[in-house]
Amino acid sequence: MTSQFSKKAEAWSARFSEPMSDLVKRYTSSVFFDKRLALVDIAGSLAHAQMLAAQGIIAHEDLAAIESGMAQIRGEIERGEFVWQLDLEDVHLNIEARLTALIGMSGKRLHTGRSRNDQVATDIRLWLRGEIDRIVDLLAGLRSALIDLAAQHAGTIMPGFTHLQVAQPVTFGHHLLAYVEMFSRDAERLRDCRKRVNRLPLGAAALAGTSYPIDRHAVARTLGFDGICANSLDAVSDRDFAIEFTAAAALIMTHVSRFSEELVLWISPRIGFIDLADRFCTGSSIMPQKKNPDVPELARGKAGRVAGHLMGLLMLMKGQPLAYNKDNQEDKEPLFDTVDTVVDTLRIFAEMSAGITVKADAMRHAAAQGFSTATDLADYLVKRGLAFRDAHEAVAHAVRICVDRGCDLGDLSLDALRAELPAVAPLLGDDVADYLTLEGSVASRNHPGGTAPDQVRAAVDAARAALAAEAG
Amino acid sequence: MTSQFSKKAEAWSARFSEPMSDLVKRYTSSVFFDKRLALVDIAGSLAHAQMLAAQGIIAHEDLAAIESGMAQIRGEIERGEFVWQLDLEDVHLNIEARLTALIGMSGKRLHTGRSRNDQVATDIRLWLRGEIDRIVDLLAGLRSALIDLAAQHAGTIMPGFTHLQVAQPVTFGHHLLAYVEMFSRDAERLRDCRKRVNRLPLGAAALAGTSYPIDRHAVARTLGFDGICANSLDAVSDRDFAIEFTAAAALIMTHVSRFSEELVLWISPRIGFIDLADRFCTGSSIMPQKKNPDVPELARGKAGRVAGHLMGLLMLMKGQPLAYNKDNQEDKEPLFDTVDTVVDTLRIFAEMSAGITVKADAMRHAAAQGFSTATDLADYLVKRGLAFRDAHEAVAHAVRICVDRGCDLGDLSLDALRAELPAVAPLLGDDVADYLTLEGSVASRNHPGGTAPDQVRAAVDAARAALAAEAG
Amino acid sequence: MTSQFSKKAEAWSARFSEPMSDLVKRYTSSVFFDKRLALVDIAGSLAHAQMLAAQGIIAHEDLAAIESGMAQIRGEIERGEFVWQLDLEDVHLNIEARLTALIGMSGKRLHTGRSRNDQVATDIRLWLRGEIDRIVDLLAGLRSALIDLAAQHAGTIMPGFTHLQVAQPVTFGHHLLAYVEMFSRDAERLRDCRKRVNRLPLGAAALAGTSYPIDRHAVARTLGFDGICANSLDAVSDRDFAIEFTAAAALIMTHVSRFSEELVLWISPRIGFIDLADRFCTGSSIMPQKKNPDVPELARGKAGRVAGHLMGLLMLMKGQPLAYNKDNQEDKEPLFDTVDTVVDTLRIFAEMSAGITVKADAMRHAAAQGFSTATDLADYLVKRGLAFRDAHEAVAHAVRICVDRGCDLGDLSLDALRAELPAVAPLLGDDVADYLTLEGSVASRNHPGGTAPDQVRAAVDAARAALAAEAG
Amino acid sequence: MTSQFSKKAEAWSARFSEPMSDLVKRYTSSVFFDKRLALVDIAGSLAHAQMLAAQGIIAHEDLAAIESGMAQIRGEIERGEFVWQLDLEDVHLNIEARLTALIGMSGKRLHTGRSRNDQVATDIRLWLRGEIDRIVDLLAGLRSALIDLAAQHAGTIMPGFTHLQVAQPVTFGHHLLAYVEMFSRDAERLRDCRKRVNRLPLGAAALAGTSYPIDRHAVARTLGFDGICANSLDAVSDRDFAIEFTAAAALIMTHVSRFSEELVLWISPRIGFIDLADRFCTGSSIMPQKKNPDVPELARGKAGRVAGHLMGLLMLMKGQPLAYNKDNQEDKEPLFDTVDTVVDTLRIFAEMSAGITVKADAMRHAAAQGFSTATDLADYLVKRGLAFRDAHEAVAHAVRICVDRGCDLGDLSLDALRAELPAVAPLLGDDVADYLTLEGSVASRNHPGGTAPDQVRAAVDAARAALAAEAG
Repeated sequence: MTSQFSKKAEAWSARFSEPMSDLVKRYTSSVFFDKRLALVDIAGSLAHAQMLAAQGIIAHEDLAAIESGMAQIRGEIERGEFVWQLDLEDVHLNIEARLTALIGMSGKRLHTGRSRNDQVATDIRLWLRGEIDRIVDLLAGLRSALIDLAAQHAGTIMPGFTHLQVAQPVTFGHHLLAYVEMFSRDAERLRDCRKRVNRLPLGAAALAGTSYPIDRHAVARTLGFDGICANSLDAVSDRDFAIEFTAAAALIMTHVSRFSEELVLWISPRIGFIDLADRFCTGSSIMPQKKNPDVPELARGKAGRVAGHLMGLLMLMKGQPLAYNKDNQEDKEPLFDTVDTVVDTLRIFAEMSAGITVKADAMRHAAAQGFSTATDLADYLVKRGLAFRDAHEAVAHAVRICVDRGCDLGDLSLDALRAELPAVAPLLGDDVADYLTLEGSVASRNHPGGTAPDQVRAAVDAARAALAAEAG
Repeated sequence: MTSQFSKKAEAWSARFSEPMSDLVKRYTSSVFFDKRLALVDIAGSLAHAQMLAAQGIIAHEDLAAIESGMAQIRGEIERGEFVWQLDLEDVHLNIEARLTALIGMSGKRLHTGRSRNDQVATDIRLWLRGEIDRIVDLLAGLRSALIDLAAQHAGTIMPGFTHLQVAQPVTFGHHLLAYVEMFSRDAERLRDCRKRVNRLPLGAAALAGTSYPIDRHAVARTLGFDGICANSLDAVSDRDFAIEFTAAAALIMTHVSRFSEELVLWISPRIGFIDLADRFCTGSSIMPQKKNPDVPELARGKAGRVAGHLMGLLMLMKGQPLAYNKDNQEDKEPLFDTVDTVVDTLRIFAEMSAGITVKADAMRHAAAQGFSTATDLADYLVKRGLAFRDAHEAVAHAVRICVDRGCDLGDLSLDALRAELPAVAPLLGDDVADYLTLEGSVASRNHPGGTAPDQVRAAVDAARAALAAEAG
Repeated sequence: MTSQFSKKAEAWSARFSEPMSDLVKRYTSSVFFDKRLALVDIAGSLAHAQMLAAQGIIAHEDLAAIESGMAQIRGEIERGEFVWQLDLEDVHLNIEARLTALIGMSGKRLHTGRSRNDQVATDIRLWLRGEIDRIVDLLAGLRSALIDLAAQHAGTIMPGFTHLQVAQPVTFGHHLLAYVEMFSRDAERLRDCRKRVNRLPLGAAALAGTSYPIDRHAVARTLGFDGICANSLDAVSDRDFAIEFTAAAALIMTHVSRFSEELVLWISPRIGFIDLADRFCTGSSIMPQKKNPDVPELARGKAGRVAGHLMGLLMLMKGQPLAYNKDNQEDKEPLFDTVDTVVDTLRIFAEMSAGITVKADAMRHAAAQGFSTATDLADYLVKRGLAFRDAHEAVAHAVRICVDRGCDLGDLSLDALRAELPAVAPLLGDDVADYLTLEGSVASRNHPGGTAPDQVRAAVDAARAALAAEAG
Repeated sequence: MTSQFSKKAEAWSARFSEPMSDLVKRYTSSVFFDKRLALVDIAGSLAHAQMLAAQGIIAHEDLAAIESGMAQIRGEIERGEFVWQLDLEDVHLNIEARLTALIGMSGKRLHTGRSRNDQVATDIRLWLRGEIDRIVDLLAGLRSALIDLAAQHAGTIMPGFTHLQVAQPVTFGHHLLAYVEMFSRDAERLRDCRKRVNRLPLGAAALAGTSYPIDRHAVARTLGFDGICANSLDAVSDRDFAIEFTAAAALIMTHVSRFSEELVLWISPRIGFIDLADRFCTGSSIMPQKKNPDVPELARGKAGRVAGHLMGLLMLMKGQPLAYNKDNQEDKEPLFDTVDTVVDTLRIFAEMSAGITVKADAMRHAAAQGFSTATDLADYLVKRGLAFRDAHEAVAHAVRICVDRGCDLGDLSLDALRAELPAVAPLLGDDVADYLTLEGSVASRNHPGGTAPDQVRAAVDAARAALAAEAG
């Protein structure tokens, strides 16, 4: 989407003065977005040339010339001096044309035994592999920030919600660790995806393989691939890896959207559980008092953007016959934009999360309302012999009474409670009040996965250990 | 997607050296993609300023200064001299800042009685209205090209397919007119959509309206809107128009994808019904003999791109509470890219369609195979008194015999036919052969909507009249 | 999705004991979901038969027999006595087989001059037209309920939010009318869509028209179609109408999802603006105190369901060559489920909305917090001569002071205000307090579309008039 | 989608006579679709009860009663005698109510220490795990069928296509193995997904864990889970596993859609490469000669269905705050329908593929056309010293000459070839003809992944070994 717009944005007027031939050229060429593959394209070409020389398909002098030419081209690109030409259609031809201009006949020999079909598939896999590694790192950074915050708030009590109704008290640390779980699964999923990305298509040539005595495994080793694509027709036409990655990215952004929704709620004045650092918010052009959580809102919206790319890619591949069709060129822009969106978002969220200011009093105050310990009263009764379903009913009755009186459960005296619930009165001991405190409630959920501060601290330790093991 | 990448593409290395504050600025700002709204932003501001002056909210001297400053800014933009600043976040603040730099205090008065929330909604509706008109024109151009080709081929016989099996002979003109129907519906749908786009949000201010004595109807008249948005909260948060437009665009691209599929099939050597002009095709980097229909293939792929944008926009708005949320900034890039994709595609397809070379012999040869007139034989029998279901069965029997013998229906002599179908032999007159010719078959479907050449010519006339009526 | 599951749900075990031939039959047949088209199928057949008789293609005795047979079949279906057979594949063959069993040869003549391809297209358009009318009625019901509630609350003040931050006070009636606008656009969109649904495909036969002297316009008149599909190939393969309808339905559900999000927020104890009737909520199996807004939550989720169907339909049609392909059978289940989802949801929402209990005190209390009248102070300064951008800055300074002191703007005395804002102190008259009241704020936004109670009442009247005009 | 329609389909008339309370009940209940979880619900309850007893939370007599009651309920369900009640909302309450009716107080104790939130999450994971295993088996069956066919056709030559243009000759076995690769990746992806499905949510209770001394690891062991969900808030609200599975399913269906597209092309008379068994095709109601590939067409269409479900699920979860919300109930129908669609499709495709009739002559004839060995001529020249880019140009020149003469490359005599290409004439030895044969061409692509028959046979062996290893 990039280059089309870059060009058009300038053309305020007279859009239609663009001659048809230029329009077709722009429509079919990809160089203005696929030039981001330049460095991996060079890496792939070098590995290919080394193999061709090792197999005796090109001369060692050719290889030397290619290596020298490519070194120069790489420098030109890194210094921003390389001149990209629309007429040369894509990143591959741009580089090859420059190489031939620099080194002559040896440059023309580089394309022996390969095709742009397997070349572009190799480039995009190499590039995506690097981006996956980067995203896994960024996920680790975000998890780390969330774990640190969770560690600080292993005992900070807030209301746990279901249906956005107060359900039971939980700790803020426990709540944050739910997101750590999500982002940990995301990292795990990306590592699985990486296995399928990291296979070498090169050697498939146009679609059927090549008649040169190539050594695909050698190229795979040079480039760090786990193995080769086992079928040439599949190798040039497969875009599963792009779809699988984008699906994983859509899940990441779904998690981000959920966290963003909560940040927006928590910072809203009616709730007021946290504050965000000013630089992640903006003011209003008309309302002087506003502090708007722009970053989480944008990130929430970007979940749709990535899911849309996933839909586009699935539709792209639907019903495509073998082998390569030009449709496949449409895989790049959504994939590139998906990576950019995820990378920027994760980086910002790691820093934004680390800078969350927790308003523990507001959290506690909210947790004390809404009968959040009603389940604890029911459990108390069960432990004294009542069946759960009967206990549930008794407590529901007590809640109804409180609602009528406009008070909370803890506001009822033990005598009042006994009076209101005569059937279970004998079961209500003097210790019942302890079970209805917020601290008592969270501490009682003391098993793996539960919200008890001790469990939260253990979960923090486990999450840190997992991060360390991954990094190790 | 545009600006993010433009910037990143340069940053080959050291991506992470970008300071967080710059990253946040880039993440939340929109100026590098919304600057395409600059001219409509100015138009909207001028209409607003004129109303403010007419209502006595600002002085006439302020208006004069604003008009003069905006004229200069417009010139700077058109000449490419305007300096867009990321720090100024969006197109609105960039222009307002420049205005204030040019004219001082009067520039600061422009924003009276409005907010960026209603300003951006106004801009994008103004812009989209213009693009809808352009796309309707482009659809007319494509329809016109298809109608002209259909007129030339009102009598050119080709096999009509269902299930990609030969079904009955049709004319190529008739086939092309099916796409004229689709693109006509698209134009009709866009005109309906335009009504809902063309309502003025300005005056909604941030969300609740303004305390200045504004005249929204006057602004609407100045800007050519059909009316005003009736509720301020809705006015600033509504993005229905973007979704409805993108849904209409997704249908356009679906039609393009179907036509493209057929072009790819027709140009394939196994079918060979048409040829496309060379400039819409490319060769291969490895196979010297190839002529690949790149344009239709890319266009087929781009159907996914636009459907993906539609999905993204629906997901963007899902569950958003009133009124404006920053999520909405994510509406622009998919909308812009949708318009670009549709505009480029339609313009290319009009010219490409006009340049189709028809291989009438290959079409006719294919139509003569595959028992395409079997239905005609069944109809012949029905007209001689057989019930349709019985006639269907008799002909199916004859077809099975031909398949066994490796011949077509027309290859059976009348005597052979009578011998094979003794039960219906008395109904088979000497005239039966006339009904089994391709010409007889197509000519017999002689009712509105049917494939008879006379009907195709009438449909061409009707389609031309419809185009003329729209243009008039 | 329906029938497959109905059958499978029973088959707890031994799923694989189903023989392949049965599986293929079930996979390809549609009778268990398309039988819902039975009554429109009969109506279409009767109109076709009447035309055949009028044109002399079948005898009047045949027509009489068909009408009598169909009357009996209709009765059998309505009484639930009709036996649907999987072996007969679809609704059309089931009915035709029964007809022939009842009336013999005349039944076999019914299918003259048509095909299942144009028959099913006719059925589904007839059915959808009726459902569109029903949904437009349901939208009117929901709009009516919302308008009535808005009328009661034209002056009930609540905080208006942007970014879920308190922005400016609005009235609850004004807020509700934003949804009336959305649902009004939905109705308008469906009426536009109906024009394109309500065209007759019958007469297209398999794909090319028929050799019988049919009168398509007569059939269109009988069935109440606005006109005929102008091209037979398009007529049998077009599913635009299903996609356009589903896109309109996805927007309806998007609006429902936004309203649901707000209902869930408003009923949440941290906000507490409204209450919902108990029968639209449920309790918890474990937490005795819970009252969960199940209906809005489910409806919010169902927005995804319908958007998913839209995507499925777009992908279904992508790249399909002309004319009819079996893929098209997949249009029905998503379309049926979309209609069911929208119909149920709208019906429930009309009643649920009518039963909303408004907690005006909580709304007012929330509006009084969060500096909601800061814009009014800025506007006050502008009206006394300050440029808006300067006024904005002065008020922002005042807000910062209040935040530091933990008070609201209205809590500052006039003297304190003047002291804090020395630069604008001379502009601050004794009347400034009036501008900072909630009532003064909303009343001042007194232009079409603004939140002033008088404007809300006028908007209620206009919305009622629009409903009456539609109904008339 | 299932139950709603099942009910509605009956209600031909008087839909609106359904009272609102019934409508709400139907809208919010799930029993008519989630009853398919009954057996896993019972399994989960038994494991929970055993743990409760082992931990001393319920008595061993309670456990015995629960086990006996559940055995009876399981029998009732399997015999189809169980009466599902809409009033009891979902599968869980239906079973629990029946249990309590059967065994009294012990039944009421079963729900101790759990909630429906963690119960339903456990059920659906248990069920999905089983379905994943089944789909992996079905994928193995399809791969096996394709491998067997590939083994038979390791040397059968067909044209390899890119852009649907003849590119180079390949073998049919090689082409089929491309799909084996795709379906192998699908199986691999599902096995990765299974790891994330197979974690136990039970013990999370409503959202925070429970105050009973439960042993979650014991329950996980009993039910065969790989581990426990580590955070209770995440455990009850996570639906990643459903989305990840559906994304994997969408890829499976994308592969099926590509294979289907090719089957439809190959069976079309213009191509005629294969025939499908009659039972996977249908005839026409009007055209007696038709044989339509219904199954592949439907399967191609169903790719959209599953992708639509994926989009629906992503949109469902977008922006959902923690923890459980009722929206999540909308996860089941798309998930169930996805499983049904994939299971039916794979089962049919395995048998349909096994029954493909290959028309080797038609394939060979098509491969001999279209200059499919042009690349081989270029490679020949390169091996004799020409740079590839120059060889490419020389051969392109020769192809242009052949196109002008209406002949193929092999039709040119060596002398004619030398005359037309004077610049490369010295390189053209007498052996060049061998390189231009179809057999020579495919045999020369003799490296891993290439189309040489020897490589295809090796790939068949490798694919069989992989299947055996998985099964082992």
